[in-house]
Amino acid sequence: MSTSRYPFAHRFDQVSGSAIREIFKVIAQPGMISFAGGNPAPEALPDDTVREIADQVLLENGKALLQYGATEGYAPFRESLKEYVRSQLGCAIPDLLPVTGSTQAMDLLSKALIDPGDTVLVENPSFLGNMQCLKLYQANLVPVESDEDGMIMVDLESKIRQYHPKLLYTIPTFQNPSGKTLPAERRRKIAELANQYHMVVAEDDPYRDLRYEGTPLPSIKSFDQDGWVVFLGSFSKIISPGLRVGYIAGDSEIIRKCTVGKQSTDVHTANLNQAVVDQFLRRNLLPAHIQKICANYGEKMKFMLSKLGEFPGSVRYTRPQGGLFIWAELPEHLNAKDLLDKAIEKKVAFVPGTHFCVGGGHTNTIRLNFSNSTLEQIETGMNVLKDLVGETI
Amino acid sequence: MSTSRYPFAHRFDQVSGSAIREIFKVIAQPGMISFAGGNPAPEALPDDTVREIADQVLLENGKALLQYGATEGYAPFRESLKEYVRSQLGCAIPDLLPVTGSTQAMDLLSKALIDPGDTVLVENPSFLGNMQCLKLYQANLVPVESDEDGMIMVDLESKIRQYHPKLLYTIPTFQNPSGKTLPAERRRKIAELANQYHMVVAEDDPYRDLRYEGTPLPSIKSFDQDGWVVFLGSFSKIISPGLRVGYIAGDSEIIRKCTVGKQSTDVHTANLNQAVVDQFLRRNLLPAHIQKICANYGEKMKFMLSKLGEFPGSVRYTRPQGGLFIWAELPEHLNAKDLLDKAIEKKVAFVPGTHFCVGGGHTNTIRLNFSNSTLEQIETGMNVLKDLVGETI
Repeated sequence: MSTSRYPFAHRFDQVSGSAIREIFKVIAQPGMISFAGGNPAPEALPDDTVREIADQVLLENGKALLQYGATEGYAPFRESLKEYVRSQLGCAIPDLLPVTGSTQAMDLLSKALIDPGDTVLVENPSFLGNMQCLKLYQANLVPVESDEDGMIMVDLESKIRQYHPKLLYTIPTFQNPSGKTLPAERRRKIAELANQYHMVVAEDDPYRDLRYEGTPLPSIKSFDQDGWVVFLGSFSKIISPGLRVGYIAGDSEIIRKCTVGKQSTDVHTANLNQAVVDQFLRRNLLPAHIQKICANYGEKMKFMLSKLGEFPGSVRYTRPQGGLFIWAELPEHLNAKDLLDKAIEKKVAFVPGTHFCVGGGHTNTIRLNFSNSTLEQIETGMNVLKDLVGETI
Repeated sequence: MSTSRYPFAHRFDQVSGSAIREIFKVIAQPGMISFAGGNPAPEALPDDTVREIADQVLLENGKALLQYGATEGYAPFRESLKEYVRSQLGCAIPDLLPVTGSTQAMDLLSKALIDPGDTVLVENPSFLGNMQCLKLYQANLVPVESDEDGMIMVDLESKIRQYHPKLLYTIPTFQNPSGKTLPAERRRKIAELANQYHMVVAEDDPYRDLRYEGTPLPSIKSFDQDGWVVFLGSFSKIISPGLRVGYIAGDSEIIRKCTVGKQSTDVHTANLNQAVVDQFLRRNLLPAHIQKICANYGEKMKFMLSKLGEFPGSVRYTRPQGGLFIWAELPEHLNAKDLLDKAIEKKVAFVPGTHFCVGGGHTNTIRLNFSNSTLEQIETGMNVLKDLVGETI
């Protein structure tokens, strides 16, 4: 509870945001090997191309880009994005809205749907940022049980019947933080359950294109017969997070509500940023760029997995086919927060898994990111962690 | 109330956003003379400079600009902005946060403070966008009475005692939509009342630099002894609205709460956009640019005022010393919505004043913008309005 002299709103009672912020201050220290964030590799950021595109669009259309834009988005981008989303999802979507990074998609969808006390089902563990978003809308977060393939459908349906949730929030592909991918049959089942029980599904799929092996899977949205699935897309992992451009796609009535919310949230996403991503789509630059990123990240992931294989004792970990994260369970007696303290002394950082878990717990788990380190850093950092885990056995 | 099959949140019960959206669709028609928006003139948008700056910052620092940034803002911009805000307000401010346009400042401050049912005092009329923002936080909006100089202090104090508001939202300089400017003594009084009654004041001052005559006034914030005044700043009217860069400045505890809210709203404001504004500040480009804009807008404002002087009957209007808007009261029997329908047929648009008024009413008022029209368009458009008003007498 707040003890401030200022009359802060009750939505902050359960949210401090401080644990992770402390970790991210630490990893900003020079010389730190960080497996903590979800940052693209520097070599994956197309700075020369963005520079060339920014120059062109400001030359050709500078006045319009600097003027107020429509809340609905920059018209040429709406057009190229619609085509892109259709090809991504393998189905036409009634409507979409460019947003200021897909975090804003979650904020606007929550604004549209969530009254205080409404139940939202989430994977456990799940993405911290969007769980914080839901908590600020005073949602009642209820976790759904998972096995090695992600959410268990029997438990999902049982939780739906028990809690009558307004929303299911899921990251079906290379999930953050677990790295798990939901099989096609479960995706189909989620769409069916959403339709049957009138529950909105937020399908958050920012890692979709970062596949290093295996075959792409159909989106949950592609199984949606009746408009209950909303797709949250991002260009942060395949172009640039610093530009803050994402989108939300789904039924027109939901998108319209998000648009009204966006009017008084930031009016519109910056035009220049939309125009830059628009050019990536129009020039068809993404396929070659993504291929290059995937080769880079795939090599790093395999190397980190091989290093985890050298860990002593009963360390279990996911073996993702893509994405940015590996999730590891250390021996049960081991507390990941204590491990982090020791690791930071040796200039290695990660995020303890407990922060991603509804209600905490899972104190022996950790999330490891491989994209933002070099192979040498992965070698050094994983050796440090291996030795620290070994010391406790 | 919602009759949708989707379970939308109750915060939308009072908000449709449709009336104004319809007007803005109409003004997008080719050949329309629009006094409706609040857009800068095309000639006031520094596209060549932005292009040159974007090229430079992406060349020198492209990888960092495309990477995730800190929620607290791009470090060089935080530094230059702090110095700028100090010189603008004539006082040091404990903390600040760059935001995605000052509309986001209002959204984050509302997120930090407003529980459903909390009272917020507003000028009447006031800025539609931020009133919609407050309504989406389910605030109870209570209007404060005004005279020709803006809010009346006796009524303000009486409303504070009656309603115990958490927040006062005010645009003290060249107010939107009225064009009124609050005198220095009232600014001092507001800061005193805020301190005395423990009420937060949101001082929204985007038009501050657009002064065409008279002497600049001290900010409310400069009279604040105890941290109850929060300053909302914007670069939309003096550089570009399309870039979406503004800031919120005030007590550290309030800024910290806004920062936690921003984490799950859009993570951070786009780095490139912050870096562009940073260069405007570091190169000291604003004074000359603002001088040029003011000469342009001042001429347009004087001309529009002179045209209003030609109107028949008992048309009263404000005579601002700056900003973007003039507020006119037409003869009482005249309904501004009907006038708008007739004006649109003759390709002239404005916004009926009723949309800016808490609880509606004031059906004979209109808001006129002059910045985004040429002198020729002002001549033509005002003649159309004059004739239409004349027809009703």
